Amino acid sequence: MIKVTVWNEFIHENVNEHVRSIYPEGIHNEIAKFLSKNEDIQVRTATLREHNHGLDDEILDDTDVLIWWGHAAHHEVSDEIVAKVHECVLKGMGFIALHSAHYSKPFIKLMGTSCSLRWRDDDRERLWCVNPGHPIARGVPEYFEIPNEEMYGEFFDIPTPDELVFLGWFRGGEVFRSGCVFNRGYGKVFYFQPGHETHPIYKDENIQRIITNAVYYLNPVKRRERISADCTKAPEEDL
Amino acid sequence: MIKVTVWNEFIHENVNEHVRSIYPEGIHNEIAKFLSKNEDIQVRTATLREHNHGLDDEILDDTDVLIWWGHAAHHEVSDEIVAKVHECVLKGMGFIALHSAHYSKPFIKLMGTSCSLRWRDDDRERLWCVNPGHPIARGVPEYFEIPNEEMYGEFFDIPTPDELVFLGWFRGGEVFRSGCVFNRGYGKVFYFQPGHETHPIYKDENIQRIITNAVYYLNPVKRRERISADCTKAPEEDL
Amino acid sequence: MIKVTVWNEFIHENVNEHVRSIYPEGIHNEIAKFLSKNEDIQVRTATLREHNHGLDDEILDDTDVLIWWGHAAHHEVSDEIVAKVHECVLKGMGFIALHSAHYSKPFIKLMGTSCSLRWRDDDRERLWCVNPGHPIARGVPEYFEIPNEEMYGEFFDIPTPDELVFLGWFRGGEVFRSGCVFNRGYGKVFYFQPGHETHPIYKDENIQRIITNAVYYLNPVKRRERISADCTKAPEEDL
Amino acid sequence: MIKVTVWNEFIHENVNEHVRSIYPEGIHNEIAKFLSKNEDIQVRTATLREHNHGLDDEILDDTDVLIWWGHAAHHEVSDEIVAKVHECVLKGMGFIALHSAHYSKPFIKLMGTSCSLRWRDDDRERLWCVNPGHPIARGVPEYFEIPNEEMYGEFFDIPTPDELVFLGWFRGGEVFRSGCVFNRGYGKVFYFQPGHETHPIYKDENIQRIITNAVYYLNPVKRRERISADCTKAPEEDL
Repeated sequence: MIKVTVWNEFIHENVNEHVRSIYPEGIHNEIAKFLSKNEDIQVRTATLREHNHGLDDEILDDTDVLIWWGHAAHHEVSDEIVAKVHECVLKGMGFIALHSAHYSKPFIKLMGTSCSLRWRDDDRERLWCVNPGHPIARGVPEYFEIPNEEMYGEFFDIPTPDELVFLGWFRGGEVFRSGCVFNRGYGKVFYFQPGHETHPIYKDENIQRIITNAVYYLNPVKRRERISADCTKAPEEDL
Repeated sequence: MIKVTVWNEFIHENVNEHVRSIYPEGIHNEIAKFLSKNEDIQVRTATLREHNHGLDDEILDDTDVLIWWGHAAHHEVSDEIVAKVHECVLKGMGFIALHSAHYSKPFIKLMGTSCSLRWRDDDRERLWCVNPGHPIARGVPEYFEIPNEEMYGEFFDIPTPDELVFLGWFRGGEVFRSGCVFNRGYGKVFYFQPGHETHPIYKDENIQRIITNAVYYLNPVKRRERISADCTKAPEEDL
Repeated sequence: MIKVTVWNEFIHENVNEHVRSIYPEGIHNEIAKFLSKNEDIQVRTATLREHNHGLDDEILDDTDVLIWWGHAAHHEVSDEIVAKVHECVLKGMGFIALHSAHYSKPFIKLMGTSCSLRWRDDDRERLWCVNPGHPIARGVPEYFEIPNEEMYGEFFDIPTPDELVFLGWFRGGEVFRSGCVFNRGYGKVFYFQPGHETHPIYKDENIQRIITNAVYYLNPVKRRERISADCTKAPEEDL
Repeated sequence: MIKVTVWNEFIHENVNEHVRSIYPEGIHNEIAKFLSKNEDIQVRTATLREHNHGLDDEILDDTDVLIWWGHAAHHEVSDEIVAKVHECVLKGMGFIALHSAHYSKPFIKLMGTSCSLRWRDDDRERLWCVNPGHPIARGVPEYFEIPNEEMYGEFFDIPTPDELVFLGWFRGGEVFRSGCVFNRGYGKVFYFQPGHETHPIYKDENIQRIITNAVYYLNPVKRRERISADCTKAPEEDL
């Protein structure tokens, strides 16, 4: 059983009628719904304005993969929770950063760069797979289209991805490293660009398949118990 | 002094009037011309139908960076010369494969993959830099356009590049890993996609700058003397 | 069900009594035996001096992961079979090269380098995991020892591995990139250094776990149908 | 002219007579001395207990490559200076982290991981080059010894290096990724393990050559002007 927590700041859906009409129960519940169709995935949700943003220690410690959607209120996420999320990833937890979560505090802390990018409102996107043998691309066609999406373009200030899976093409003339895997400690991070809140992108079958594949791919192989200050003094032996 | 040999199969320029009108002296001489403007670069050219394709041992041994353009006659290149070029790269020589040289024998041998790709005639390309701190991108804008170019699109069957420098965007809906560096042995390989023979692409200032930058970047740091069967039996020591 | 073919040149076991005493049925059957303990792995074996080296088309086409052990007779492997194995990997088949298979024809063709290294007879090795969250390291301690092993040391002339999982330490003063994953086409390649024929290394529990893990990791996600000359002319569309 | 600032916390040399006997003027001045032998390198030094740790804005803005040695007082480095150093790297400045600077605040912030490792007092080290064509390895033998060095061993909790140049072998049984390059923004980071303060390691000719090579390699190609919040809204065009 893979335990997934879907975190959403859950602001746009509350203040913008158009967004609410697409995701009446919030982006987190849309994602939870399609993931829950898999018998071996167990899903919780958590949102910004719950106590501890819904991420108490017992929740984080019981999470195999944390999915993160945020945009309007990155600054409201407390540094204490960010530090805990960060440590959980280094200990093995998977972390999927969706769309505007490129600017979320946990993602930036994991990357070590500014994560800035180029953007523009509504555009048409094609998502190309450049690593068709990758588990996250399982069952996904060589390319597919997203009729309406916010454009995210290069230069995207991230470290070189350990695995580049998808490239985005935009009608307006830009390209983007749209699906990237990064290893951090015992954990894996997947950044996936699609998902602007004003379009029903998480209802798309290919998008759902990719996020589902990523959950399986990021499910931890091994957990580390301690991180902080755990440089180990090694014994001397006679070799 | 960096010694560059520009190799061209030199067929299209001889059989196609349109191509000849663009490159009356051949693509090799066009490239040689702009490289020669640099006082510390010394350029030779070589072509397919010269003896040994113009690549006698003394030429190869005296070459720091070999530039390769081929398209219509990859099969005419002798396996013996390919083996020599391959060994020179492993010993330290830089190798720049331009455009349709993705299907040249030396490039395929260095990659270990099929190097197949998707293509289509005339399109409009934008070249984006995804690694702006890279020496090959020195002095190149964040993106620039090539008004007419053959489309090369993903999936491009190459190993994961060690360094991805440029991505190509095509008006017709495709993306491509257009500028890639691969380390092989003591040498470096740069694949650069632009350069279809029916358009004056090697006369473009940005293209010239990139190829020139690549020559400096691929200039060998160190040479290896032997490769073949050179597994070394190491001495036993008292440590 | 994962279909594995274990290939062995099967020469040392026939001509050297010491090796035969360790592996009376051959290295291939030792490996087949521990893999077969997994209900979802189905194992075949094949050896050099069978017809087509035991690798008829129907066998290769029905293989998910091919394991390769060779040392004394790399040159006896026909180029035609090597070309088929190579194409199968690009189409998705996993390929595990064990120990002296660093110099096997299929491995060299997949790497594009000389694959030469430094070596010395009997030494003591420690294998360290530098990627503890990697699926191939599942259940493997942070390090373990191989009391007697042939030393393989750097410089190992391979392309930069896509994933570096194990480093070897040798008592005599050398280090080695002992466990490396390379992506090639739709397939994955795992090179794993331990396994000199004069020591019972494939009877070691950690070695068995690593090879078993690698089989699961290299099991193809997707298969490609064609490779050769399959550059695709893409259609023109109105975007 | 490459402008280098050598930063040292400069504590051990002041409180420990043995360390002072090795580096009477401090580690920073030892490093400054050998770098200054190069006519095109201009060196400054800075230390922890100077105002702003000696890293006023005008110093940082005028630095091409910053070298960092720290051990006893990482916590004394102000977060404000760390943020400035971090931003300078993303804008293009090179950053060389020496030895125990694996636990310095700027390095950890750039890596996004814990940077923890295994260690033990005095040991004998051999440094092996696994990337002999790399500019940082220019003029360095395939391996060399450091007779006395603190052992640093795996697992070293860093992201996968973009370039792995040196591996450390220790007499006591450990291995370490001792020389690693990471790209961050427009800048490059080089982590180099040797340099425990109780041994005269920075007086070693090979160590000096490697650090000098790294200065040339990290000298920025291009500078970025702004980072913070610089997502750019791209114009719409008719393509």
